[in-house]
Amino acid sequence: MADAPRADAHYKAVLQAYIDGLNARDADAVIALFAPDAVIEDPVGTPPKRGEAIDAWFRGAVQVEPLLELSAPIRGSHGASAAMAFTVTTTRKNGRFRTASVDVAYFNEDGLIERFEGHWGPSDRVELADD
Amino acid sequence: MADAPRADAHYKAVLQAYIDGLNARDADAVIALFAPDAVIEDPVGTPPKRGEAIDAWFRGAVQVEPLLELSAPIRGSHGASAAMAFTVTTTRKNGRFRTASVDVAYFNEDGLIERFEGHWGPSDRVELADD
Repeated sequence: MADAPRADAHYKAVLQAYIDGLNARDADAVIALFAPDAVIEDPVGTPPKRGEAIDAWFRGAVQVEPLLELSAPIRGSHGASAAMAFTVTTTRKNGRFRTASVDVAYFNEDGLIERFEGHWGPSDRVELADD
Repeated sequence: MADAPRADAHYKAVLQAYIDGLNARDADAVIALFAPDAVIEDPVGTPPKRGEAIDAWFRGAVQVEPLLELSAPIRGSHGASAAMAFTVTTTRKNGRFRTASVDVAYFNEDGLIERFEGHWGPSDRVELADD
């Protein structure tokens, strides 16, 4: 496909599609944003995920009632990357949690995500009280 | 120094010190957060800065009346990184500007920043009207 640099509007749109896809619980839509050889390190400091492990991870992610909300507008770059600060609320057997993350996506020349990093630490996840 | 993993509180504190140092126009305090062999790519997509170029860059940065404001709390990670979404307002000969960025810092085993990325694109900088 195109090998020219893409406008940073494209990279921002892909991160918005990532949020929208997870909120719609549409794992296929999210997986389609990633290159076949993509690597995900989320959270940073844990083993990278590739290939089928990525597919399985997103199919699990949509099962925990994810609600992602941007903390600030998505940022682009002068290269092939974009980044966003957001929170995600999940509902699991052991409770409801809110995690604050900064995710960074690095893109290949086809405009697909080839590397994805989720920066959040133990102190960035809190358990929410029951309603 | 310590070669054990540091708590993500340390990495967050360094990013807060980065903000505080620039807001105080204290270039030395900011430079001291970086390892001698650090690489800065800010904005991502431009040539990396190293060594004396980093010193010169921060000494210039404090000359443009920087005001950095977090857009959301700083995030840590499960590894040796931290990330933050913020805006920075600067006053230059050609006007006042506000830039929205996500900066990511990767640390060495001494707790100093060894790689620093500033994710912001052309669409993330706006010129501010005169007061």
